[in-house]
Amino acid sequence: MSEVIATYLVHDAKGDLSKKAEGIALGLTVGSWTDLPLLEQEQLKAHKGRVLEVSQLENSEKTNQYLGKKVTKGKIKIAYPSINYSHDLPAILTTIFGKLSLDGEVKLVDIELSEDVKSSFPGPAFGVSGIREALGIYNRPLLMSIFKGVIGRDLTYLKDQLRQQVLGGVDLVKDDEILFDNPLTPFEDRIIAGKEVLKNVYEETGHKAFYAVNLSGKTFELKDKAKRATELGANVLLFNVFAYGLDVLQSLAEDPEISVPIMAHPAVSGASTASSLYGFSSSLLLGKLLRISGADFSLFPSPYGSVALDRNEALGIAENCLKEDAFKKSFPVPSAGIHPGLVPLLIQDFGNDSVINAGGGVHGHPNGAIGGGRAFRAAIDATLKGITLKQASTSDEDLKLAIDLWGAKEVCK
Amino acid sequence: MSEVIATYLVHDAKGDLSKKAEGIALGLTVGSWTDLPLLEQEQLKAHKGRVLEVSQLENSEKTNQYLGKKVTKGKIKIAYPSINYSHDLPAILTTIFGKLSLDGEVKLVDIELSEDVKSSFPGPAFGVSGIREALGIYNRPLLMSIFKGVIGRDLTYLKDQLRQQVLGGVDLVKDDEILFDNPLTPFEDRIIAGKEVLKNVYEETGHKAFYAVNLSGKTFELKDKAKRATELGANVLLFNVFAYGLDVLQSLAEDPEISVPIMAHPAVSGASTASSLYGFSSSLLLGKLLRISGADFSLFPSPYGSVALDRNEALGIAENCLKEDAFKKSFPVPSAGIHPGLVPLLIQDFGNDSVINAGGGVHGHPNGAIGGGRAFRAAIDATLKGITLKQASTSDEDLKLAIDLWGAKEVCK
Repeated sequence: MSEVIATYLVHDAKGDLSKKAEGIALGLTVGSWTDLPLLEQEQLKAHKGRVLEVSQLENSEKTNQYLGKKVTKGKIKIAYPSINYSHDLPAILTTIFGKLSLDGEVKLVDIELSEDVKSSFPGPAFGVSGIREALGIYNRPLLMSIFKGVIGRDLTYLKDQLRQQVLGGVDLVKDDEILFDNPLTPFEDRIIAGKEVLKNVYEETGHKAFYAVNLSGKTFELKDKAKRATELGANVLLFNVFAYGLDVLQSLAEDPEISVPIMAHPAVSGASTASSLYGFSSSLLLGKLLRISGADFSLFPSPYGSVALDRNEALGIAENCLKEDAFKKSFPVPSAGIHPGLVPLLIQDFGNDSVINAGGGVHGHPNGAIGGGRAFRAAIDATLKGITLKQASTSDEDLKLAIDLWGAKEVCK
Repeated sequence: MSEVIATYLVHDAKGDLSKKAEGIALGLTVGSWTDLPLLEQEQLKAHKGRVLEVSQLENSEKTNQYLGKKVTKGKIKIAYPSINYSHDLPAILTTIFGKLSLDGEVKLVDIELSEDVKSSFPGPAFGVSGIREALGIYNRPLLMSIFKGVIGRDLTYLKDQLRQQVLGGVDLVKDDEILFDNPLTPFEDRIIAGKEVLKNVYEETGHKAFYAVNLSGKTFELKDKAKRATELGANVLLFNVFAYGLDVLQSLAEDPEISVPIMAHPAVSGASTASSLYGFSSSLLLGKLLRISGADFSLFPSPYGSVALDRNEALGIAENCLKEDAFKKSFPVPSAGIHPGLVPLLIQDFGNDSVINAGGGVHGHPNGAIGGGRAFRAAIDATLKGITLKQASTSDEDLKLAIDLWGAKEVCK
């Protein structure tokens, strides 16, 4: 069948989940059924939503208290025939979670696209393999860091920060997502300046790194800006996709004239993932939907920091980035609260095909961003060799300083 | 000051709201402050976020129970200098609610733009006055109804439904938001067929009505489709803005070649408004932000039906659609659960400058959609004349049948 299957988590006060499911399946497709003449049923059969599963889950005490009433918690799976909508995300999301998003305690936790529907989506243009090839790094997680305190600063300041980070061995440096096009550090000038810094470091040290520049501005100007970025040789485009729309990401990803990897930032996404009752699951929005729309990297809150995501949700995002599918794999980038001492845990939780991303954990190192980068690289090397950080730190001063400052979480094998 | 002021509702477990507010104001602008040299403070002063208000609200018993801990509920107001971002909604939202949307129990309840920032936004191109002029209706709420069960149906079926609705005196008929471009009823054919039906009814009865056609498809094809709709003489464009992005709506609204009013549908918006702890307030997202972005109509769940919005939230949306501002007014369209017996309450709650919008309340009338339309129009006339529905129904058979079926909620003056 050509269809999209949606899985919902519902909390229903009326207690009849099967009736609720049937109401959704009809209400979001043909409208009514049993009162239709047989001839019309025959005509509309191909358009009718089908309930695939209704299962009651244990009642969550917390949720009951919050709603102030007894509710039935359940999982509902519905198949929506793809003949009903154009094969783009705005149409699919409006069908499966348009009106329904406004109709009580319903959370969209997963979707499955049949193969022919998938074929309308690009997936990452580069993906894990393409990024690895471009950087020439095959056997370890990538290391990324973030510009810090760059609002109101000039290009000289940015160039210096970029240089310090890359000299420490960082593979990717991303713009702060709140740095937009501005007179002090305009978009095109940042790309040009960034390339110059990276070229110099490469010539001095042989270390190759990428700079992710924030693609911002009005929606209908993004393509031209991205094409200009391509011409200027930008390495990666950072994109605040949830301030725009998933379909905008897709259009950028599938444009053959925009041949630059895209790094999706989760800014604003918390508005529609944070509740346990409403919105989207993080694994769907930041994992599956970003990947099918063409993100090469997906940033999301790590489960370790103060801005933390539930561990299962974070692992679910990574799983959706990496599992075998019709699309290339995208890099999961668990972010926030990351320091060198967490590297063994990060690699255990997110594996080799992930990006280790730090802000304060690089910049806040006693030896500055260079020391922070070195400490991370030492921690990655040690972990992959099966050496504990404590052990490795005896011969690496930067790692030792980092561990003294932030601690280390060793992982038992 | 040129700035955007954001108001947040927070539930903080640490209890120090002032510290939290200061952390937000710095974290989303210059990053750090007290540890900066004085010279740098001087340079960055114009970029620094400012805490304008921190007030503790009464602790909500419900919320405490839900979070399973004692939390401090508070309101925080922060001013973000507009020098930090380009004056478009993706940049503004990323600044004021990007990372922050992922950082615990924070809900963005309002924003205020300084006049110069406002000047970057179009507001409705037509607005209440423009729509009234186009329809020639000045002294009553407009009446709208919705196509029903049109998936899998052909143009003949749609034309007949449209005719029945308009013959009953409905002023606007909107597409079902889940009807996309499809072989049975393609976008352009719907516009042409709709115009023909409306022209015929006008010639037969003198009643002028508009048809709102669903503008759908890929983001970067929308402008061309909307221009084609303009050429074909479309009356109104229905738009699932939250499946795309507010900036897409703005680009459509401010394009001089797209001279058709835009009706914003709330599909998918519940994902980021339904929680009391996270996301956006409905009055902000469906009221203020839709209006500044250029929606001429804003649909939202009425406070009366089964898919209901909290009454204060619904009234807040209408207030933001209609209050005096630099922009034209937009029509609030409280929807779902509306029948003729609710007209006095609707007019009391939402006033004259609103659209009374019904689906089942028109189609489910014992005399069909024509009877439903007539019953609504009779209810509107009676209410504006200060006559009770019961009184009016003695001389109006359609209104009597509607009240017998659905009841009537009289309003005490």
